[in-house]
Amino acid sequence: MDKNNQFGYHAWLQPRVIESLPGFTLSGLEGFAYDECKKGIARLTGGKPGNTNIELSISDTLTHEAYTITGSFDGISIAGGGESGLLYGVYGLLARLSQGQTQFDVTEKPATSRRILNHWDNIDGSVERGYSGKSLFFKDGQIAYDPERLHDYARLLASIGINQICINNVNVYFQSAQLITQKLPDVARIADIFRPFGIKLIISVHFESPALLGGLETSDPLDEDVANWWKQATAEVYKHIPDLAGFLIKADSEFRAGPMSLGRTQAEGANVIAKALKPFGGMAYWRCFVYNCMQDWRDTVTDRPKAAYNYFKPLDGDFDDNVMLQIKHGPSDFQVREPNSPLLGAMDNTRQGMELQVTQEYTGQQKDLYALAVQWEEIFEHPVTSTSKTRDLVGNKIEAVVAVANTGSDANWTGHLLAQANLYAFGKMAWDPTLTAAQVTKEWVALTFGTNPQLFDPMVDMILSSRAVYEKYNAPLGIGWMVNINHHYGPSVDGYEYMKWGTYHRADTKAIGVDRTSAGTGLTAQYHPYVRDMYEDKKTCPEEIMLYFHRLPYNYRLKSGQTLIQYIYDTHFEGVDDVKGFIQTWESIKEHMPIDAYTPVRQRLDAQLKNAEEWRDVVNSYFYRKTGIADEKGRKIY
Amino acid sequence: MDKNNQFGYHAWLQPRVIESLPGFTLSGLEGFAYDECKKGIARLTGGKPGNTNIELSISDTLTHEAYTITGSFDGISIAGGGESGLLYGVYGLLARLSQGQTQFDVTEKPATSRRILNHWDNIDGSVERGYSGKSLFFKDGQIAYDPERLHDYARLLASIGINQICINNVNVYFQSAQLITQKLPDVARIADIFRPFGIKLIISVHFESPALLGGLETSDPLDEDVANWWKQATAEVYKHIPDLAGFLIKADSEFRAGPMSLGRTQAEGANVIAKALKPFGGMAYWRCFVYNCMQDWRDTVTDRPKAAYNYFKPLDGDFDDNVMLQIKHGPSDFQVREPNSPLLGAMDNTRQGMELQVTQEYTGQQKDLYALAVQWEEIFEHPVTSTSKTRDLVGNKIEAVVAVANTGSDANWTGHLLAQANLYAFGKMAWDPTLTAAQVTKEWVALTFGTNPQLFDPMVDMILSSRAVYEKYNAPLGIGWMVNINHHYGPSVDGYEYMKWGTYHRADTKAIGVDRTSAGTGLTAQYHPYVRDMYEDKKTCPEEIMLYFHRLPYNYRLKSGQTLIQYIYDTHFEGVDDVKGFIQTWESIKEHMPIDAYTPVRQRLDAQLKNAEEWRDVVNSYFYRKTGIADEKGRKIY
Repeated sequence: MDKNNQFGYHAWLQPRVIESLPGFTLSGLEGFAYDECKKGIARLTGGKPGNTNIELSISDTLTHEAYTITGSFDGISIAGGGESGLLYGVYGLLARLSQGQTQFDVTEKPATSRRILNHWDNIDGSVERGYSGKSLFFKDGQIAYDPERLHDYARLLASIGINQICINNVNVYFQSAQLITQKLPDVARIADIFRPFGIKLIISVHFESPALLGGLETSDPLDEDVANWWKQATAEVYKHIPDLAGFLIKADSEFRAGPMSLGRTQAEGANVIAKALKPFGGMAYWRCFVYNCMQDWRDTVTDRPKAAYNYFKPLDGDFDDNVMLQIKHGPSDFQVREPNSPLLGAMDNTRQGMELQVTQEYTGQQKDLYALAVQWEEIFEHPVTSTSKTRDLVGNKIEAVVAVANTGSDANWTGHLLAQANLYAFGKMAWDPTLTAAQVTKEWVALTFGTNPQLFDPMVDMILSSRAVYEKYNAPLGIGWMVNINHHYGPSVDGYEYMKWGTYHRADTKAIGVDRTSAGTGLTAQYHPYVRDMYEDKKTCPEEIMLYFHRLPYNYRLKSGQTLIQYIYDTHFEGVDDVKGFIQTWESIKEHMPIDAYTPVRQRLDAQLKNAEEWRDVVNSYFYRKTGIADEKGRKIY
Repeated sequence: MDKNNQFGYHAWLQPRVIESLPGFTLSGLEGFAYDECKKGIARLTGGKPGNTNIELSISDTLTHEAYTITGSFDGISIAGGGESGLLYGVYGLLARLSQGQTQFDVTEKPATSRRILNHWDNIDGSVERGYSGKSLFFKDGQIAYDPERLHDYARLLASIGINQICINNVNVYFQSAQLITQKLPDVARIADIFRPFGIKLIISVHFESPALLGGLETSDPLDEDVANWWKQATAEVYKHIPDLAGFLIKADSEFRAGPMSLGRTQAEGANVIAKALKPFGGMAYWRCFVYNCMQDWRDTVTDRPKAAYNYFKPLDGDFDDNVMLQIKHGPSDFQVREPNSPLLGAMDNTRQGMELQVTQEYTGQQKDLYALAVQWEEIFEHPVTSTSKTRDLVGNKIEAVVAVANTGSDANWTGHLLAQANLYAFGKMAWDPTLTAAQVTKEWVALTFGTNPQLFDPMVDMILSSRAVYEKYNAPLGIGWMVNINHHYGPSVDGYEYMKWGTYHRADTKAIGVDRTSAGTGLTAQYHPYVRDMYEDKKTCPEEIMLYFHRLPYNYRLKSGQTLIQYIYDTHFEGVDDVKGFIQTWESIKEHMPIDAYTPVRQRLDAQLKNAEEWRDVVNSYFYRKTGIADEKGRKIY
């Protein structure tokens, strides 16, 4: 099928002629933004003649990526602080026109200048934790892509403000390590595609590149030859891609090599690469996902969520000024519910970025509907101190908002059509963390499906409720991890319980959970006293995260009056009913959408129902078998 | 290292000069057996001159594979019923000489004429459930082997009476399907290597070969074109390998295609292939491992162990006379403890073989020591009726004894040096199922390490006890399956509990086990009344298999007086202590063996200890957490 005929391909840039729009003319600064504006207007008006003029200009008073839109259908002005700002202004106007706005008095600038997508694409064409087909960049050990498709992808990303992408998996093996050597000319051609859209490339590099690619005997960051190798290799990279944003490094993490194995600190490891990047303005993005992945499950002292803070906090000030630590939003690993990482905002003299996941590794794998925006809103809302929230740090202590991509070769980019809403929300919320989930979801539905209230309201409600629904039928109250090992889809309550990964619920016949307060592993002490106190006390600890911090007996009474065990049963039955509700909703709005939007989503909802039933029955059976406590409502448990 | 310098390479055919032996001369029938005798004598005497004559001859009064050895060091006669019998006589004499025998009055004939090893070797060189390196036959999609090594392998197998081998995995994919087409000339060259040793090849074939290789639109066994395709393809195979033993087929099993998916019976599926083999005397070995591997774990009516009987018993008489059903010894899947399959001996008009596993899939994966001979002795001892045991069927209703191979490219063939004892035992017990585990183990130790009692007695005891030790630290009382999914090494009590594989213990806080009596799933009814009654009643059901047939509360009193839960705790602590005992034993006999025998086994014992500790702690913690019942002895449980 021609991709241009596929509803999903166009995502939130649907070709949809809006009758109420006038015809437009363009004037002012010609160039890429001008051309994009012209194409966008044609998409929304069908080339209707008219005389509402849009004037494009650059303004000295705005920062590079900022823009203003002013005027009405009598005449509209877009001014950008630079080429990127002007382009964002164009996309901003188009989105507003698409949603029916007629008067414009807009000033926009991003909260942070680094809004980044990380692709975990492997050079063989597979995508780690990818649920949307194959890689957009690689195939069979080579760089291989559809230039037109990549161009369209760049537009989608730019239209939501993303301005950096890392194209290869953080788990770098020999062939992908070569992206900075042999394969460099091909990478440069990808950079050429993204450049006009204001998007810079990042390359994931192998920490042991000096040995692996350079043939050196060591990759010790304090070795002079190693430092020189990085300098020369990096200079070569910048010859091909002068505007490369930098390198991304996963080191000392899950069997990846790193400085620790050489007796060096994380800072020493990061700095040798940063120094090579420095002359070219490049950044060393250094991931903080460092923990003991060979933990003995019998060990109740080691507590994985404490690891990142323990490794990195003492090194505050040791990192070069072009090292940016990339910190996962939570101390665990992209679970449905986590507290924020105590490392976020905890270092005064170290640059930091926050890593999210748009790809739904633990959140339904683009089979199950899951509104990540709802979770991100909570993450931004998470307190850092008594007077500041995480969103307040964005653009200050948090200089980058990063997410692992959810896109791939599937015609609709994201596998689940509605998972496009997550990508959209990421871009928008990285640009402006004060946006709510409701705001971005409504925007996405309006842009993608239009604003017919018979479709709009039910779909927005369904999407916004989906995170809560998924959470209901998953691991209870923030305990996390009750998933099948390796692939992470579907329930396995003990799947990670006796493993080496540091992920334990320690459920017995009487109680469940890990005490992470000062009486337990002491994770709470890593937070600011205000946050520490909140989590420390069961009275103030939010119930939805209770089992992350506290061990509770099954007869513990929640504020609702339910016992913990009854809460587990109730939520798991409700979760399934709610998914059935999704299906009803979807059927009820079927007539208001194209069949190629309806059908694939319906198929995914059916799969989600099966998954929800499996979660319900496995989790309920597990706890019923373990506790012997019957469901008060006498429902079927196995 | 030169393989000839490796102790393990020679296995039970050690070059060891035995001073007490005289020098020998040879006379009689020259040929392959004569040459093998000459080499063997040189191995044991170092070419010592002398005049004890060994005369080789063929006897008309013996069946083809039978032999006699008579005489003393005044002169020895070996007579074989045929070339194979004579060769077995030669190996028989060499083994007896090696063990110090000086007088000979031996008549030997195999209990059955089919003693078969099945290699689960993949064409990419990997071995499914292989723990001894890579394939001996394949590499990177091609047939590739070391001819000298394969020659030595054939000798090892022939020396223990194995006379058929299937060289490729029963899970056949496109490339290995081609072994009967494009790759046939290469297979024929392998057959040439094994032929002089009296070993015939079997090839695993893909049930859908007519479609896959022949390009037909169907592989429906009742389709005339399909039948013709099999006939022509098989005729071509026999042009290259006139003495091929037959084809092996895994159909309708674990996602393999088969007749059921085409609306045909197992018999119809088998017969179309059998008819093609018939003119050439070939056998269609048809595996009975057919069950629903997509079972809903909530379904308590379906019971996987009933499947083979249910599928095949009603078809008794429908199979052609050159179809041999290949039935796993137990109704589950090579677990540490199972009852025998009720299908064994249950069909009066269908030819049957019994499938064992020498490779230690569920029994320690050649990291842990496990004397399979002990288990096989029990299997042969298992009653079929009140008056017959399984071993009585061998050579009658059971016409083949088959085992999945444990050999690979490792220098010592079997990974764990002591796992050679399992291969040795298999050959010997397939030849003579009345042999005890003690007999074959003693033979193996004597042949491999000699008979110095300081080494011999401790090693024999250690090997013979190893099955009981492994069982102690594994799943209790025959319940099975508490293993990590997919790879099957190490404990995961709930690993298969909520899965689709039909493998459930259904443990709750009060009880564990599946009732398979007439009050439960009714598996017992598939057995002869004598066996049925034994398993039906807890009083007569052997305790070691109790949880296979009965659901028991944890406070159930075993004959020892222990409660079930205390039994679980006790055995799991004992198992670890016993493995520590193995290490002590091994250290105590270290000085009596070559260092290249001592060291690798010591390393495996250390790994086994870790595994036993993991089993102990995971299983005990699981049941302690589930029941809340403390260990009476107050030992550490997590």
